[in-house]
Amino acid sequence: MSKQKQRNIAIIGSGLVGSLLSIYLKNHGHQVTIFDRRPDIRTVAFSGRSINLAMSNRGWKTLRNLGLEDEIKKIAIPLHQRALHVNDKPVYFQKYGKEGEAIWSISRGILNRKMIDLAEDFGVQFRFNEKVWDVSLPEAKIFTGKSEKSKWKEYQYDIIFGCDGAFSRVRHRMQRRSRFDYSQDFIDVGYKELTIPPNDDGTHRLDKNSFHIWPRGKFMLIAMPNIDGSFTCTLFLPFEGEVSFETISSKSEAKAFFKKYFPNVRKEIEDLTKSFMANPTSAMVTMKCYPWTYWDKVALVGDAAHAVVPFYGQGMNAGFEDISVLNDLINEFGDDWETIFTTYQKVRKPNADAIAELSYRNFMEMSSKTADSNFLLQKKIEKHFSKKHPDKWIPVYSRVTFSDRPYAEALKIGDYQEGIMKRILQIPNIDNLWDSWEVEQRILELLDA
Amino acid sequence: MSKQKQRNIAIIGSGLVGSLLSIYLKNHGHQVTIFDRRPDIRTVAFSGRSINLAMSNRGWKTLRNLGLEDEIKKIAIPLHQRALHVNDKPVYFQKYGKEGEAIWSISRGILNRKMIDLAEDFGVQFRFNEKVWDVSLPEAKIFTGKSEKSKWKEYQYDIIFGCDGAFSRVRHRMQRRSRFDYSQDFIDVGYKELTIPPNDDGTHRLDKNSFHIWPRGKFMLIAMPNIDGSFTCTLFLPFEGEVSFETISSKSEAKAFFKKYFPNVRKEIEDLTKSFMANPTSAMVTMKCYPWTYWDKVALVGDAAHAVVPFYGQGMNAGFEDISVLNDLINEFGDDWETIFTTYQKVRKPNADAIAELSYRNFMEMSSKTADSNFLLQKKIEKHFSKKHPDKWIPVYSRVTFSDRPYAEALKIGDYQEGIMKRILQIPNIDNLWDSWEVEQRILELLDA
Repeated sequence: MSKQKQRNIAIIGSGLVGSLLSIYLKNHGHQVTIFDRRPDIRTVAFSGRSINLAMSNRGWKTLRNLGLEDEIKKIAIPLHQRALHVNDKPVYFQKYGKEGEAIWSISRGILNRKMIDLAEDFGVQFRFNEKVWDVSLPEAKIFTGKSEKSKWKEYQYDIIFGCDGAFSRVRHRMQRRSRFDYSQDFIDVGYKELTIPPNDDGTHRLDKNSFHIWPRGKFMLIAMPNIDGSFTCTLFLPFEGEVSFETISSKSEAKAFFKKYFPNVRKEIEDLTKSFMANPTSAMVTMKCYPWTYWDKVALVGDAAHAVVPFYGQGMNAGFEDISVLNDLINEFGDDWETIFTTYQKVRKPNADAIAELSYRNFMEMSSKTADSNFLLQKKIEKHFSKKHPDKWIPVYSRVTFSDRPYAEALKIGDYQEGIMKRILQIPNIDNLWDSWEVEQRILELLDA
Repeated sequence: MSKQKQRNIAIIGSGLVGSLLSIYLKNHGHQVTIFDRRPDIRTVAFSGRSINLAMSNRGWKTLRNLGLEDEIKKIAIPLHQRALHVNDKPVYFQKYGKEGEAIWSISRGILNRKMIDLAEDFGVQFRFNEKVWDVSLPEAKIFTGKSEKSKWKEYQYDIIFGCDGAFSRVRHRMQRRSRFDYSQDFIDVGYKELTIPPNDDGTHRLDKNSFHIWPRGKFMLIAMPNIDGSFTCTLFLPFEGEVSFETISSKSEAKAFFKKYFPNVRKEIEDLTKSFMANPTSAMVTMKCYPWTYWDKVALVGDAAHAVVPFYGQGMNAGFEDISVLNDLINEFGDDWETIFTTYQKVRKPNADAIAELSYRNFMEMSSKTADSNFLLQKKIEKHFSKKHPDKWIPVYSRVTFSDRPYAEALKIGDYQEGIMKRILQIPNIDNLWDSWEVEQRILELLDA
């Protein structure tokens, strides 16, 4: 490790990324204070509004590096496969990766409480219920107060990290500068959370080690297990249109909707129609911006720099990977924060853009293609070929989820592989030939072409 | 005209779009007040920072409808052609359209002063030096004050129009709502204004009725005439890179740059090196958003809804066309502002996106292609064919500039025509055959294909 001057660092946001980053910075010997406008999440009841998280390789790697992997795995459940529920067909199980590869279902609330506990153990200071209203970028000052118009308190730091999420206040200040590129794009699909409670004996009502999907074309229901035996379900549905949140405005309409589209799961869901009416419908956004840093003073990390829609389960993983990258750069450049920040944003930006694109596309894959036999056949062929030629073919899902190669590479190679698979699927009688020697040779030929 | 209930309307921004819209609304019998954070432009010296404007058909149409066309033409100069200045070659003149078609050079400052005079004559109220800090969208309230944190004054209106430009405060409030799409993209090229003064006898030093371009690939200089005999020059140059604003940081570097790239015009420019160092370097942004309206209460018009880079000369024209569209809808739907606003944004959004794309592309056309003989040949062929078959071919520039057909149509047909021209340019010996019967027949064939 390069020699380091102790810095006085503020982190805005006590979420997953902010609290994990604080531990890394403490490890490097810095003083760290985290500000959050919300109360300490350990003292409040769960809001229940967050999609359950899927921790995969990139997230684990960042935890492992601090020796935290085993401890967090205790509150997570491994999912080895998708369980695809198509009406009038048996459940179809699709393995995610190779033997032993899994994504891990974990509750955002439970994980966040744990992370704050750990950060406190490491000596991080927390200032909850203190909202940052403004930031002076060149001076690394932050301004907090009761309201936008109240008298503000001023703090001076050496460095500020904005880990305050998709609607970041720190970024808000950067956004007013000239030559700051920014976009926020909402998708036309919203989501609503519902719950499947445990069995009376505390066990799970559906297969515990599967990521459950009820694909219905333009919409879908998913379910991820919790450690208390319940499942968090999420209904993804267009806001407007023929079948949409707009057209389900009463308990009876909600009942009819589930009866028609989800007849085999609706009775498992707790207080279905009541919850449907009571729970909020939330929107999803892709947010991109650039630059992510200001001199050697301010940097955005995680959702504040790059928010993605949740369909690849990579939002948190991408944020944790930001931290790994920053940590490597601190090890390399020590006290030269200007070089650390400049390199950080240059390295991460193309990968953030790539995972945004992959995440956006994956809604179609999950909601529509997983009910399509051609798509399932394609995945089978890829897996088969990949097993025989692991050096020649890693499916894009595995590149994203089970490797730590750059997202941008996964996107590029994935598109290339997709082109090959399109041609393979046109082979006559491919349904029967899919694991034949001829098909294998044809893929090898196309790869060499 | 449908029957109208008199409404109390606020317009934020006394720029070109705000002041022209106010006259239209007055014409419909409404009460109109315009707020502007700046002082009355009629009372201050010119900032000199605005690119000279090019008024074309869409702008004139909106003025003509109020009987203002002739009055404004008195302060504008028609430009029938581009004058292309390539070193060591004679100036090449390229006509913009058919006989009699021209774009009109006009000073933003002079035009804005005139528009405010006219709006006052129509009975519009102005509140200058009064900055709007916030807006309540559902209540159509605006809040003004000395500073963000001072005590604010509150005004209640029936309808609010945000005509407050690319960095609109009204939009800023809409932007914080869920499902509001927004993007701002800065280009890597900046601009700086310079001046060519008149001759001693008050005449213009360059051809008065031309839009002058010195195309140099990744950068260019342009000049547009003013009614006082001077030209406003604009240097467009990358911010960073080999030849860029970044690399010209002293008077001697500025001198060397102009000596090398603009040897034939540099002596005409007033206090070249001093002005170069003193005048600001400005950035250019494409801004898109959606929706543009809130219920029947608030609407964005002009740059506040869609800011484009200036290379098609359509920013103001697009804003004025917004007003024409709103006026038609008010005539059709009278007092039903919800329908007026919903239809307005639906009709205008695809056209705003199209002119953003066309404007972005046109930098390459102006700075690079206008120095390319193939491109000039293509334009000659198009003009020749279009003259013979005006029903079959209108060049994209003419569709944008001299027609009032939708921008989206111009973009689409333009791309289609571009495909045909690519093939025509591949005809052997096209340099000599360009106005031949064979080439004409080939274009007709391709159009029929």
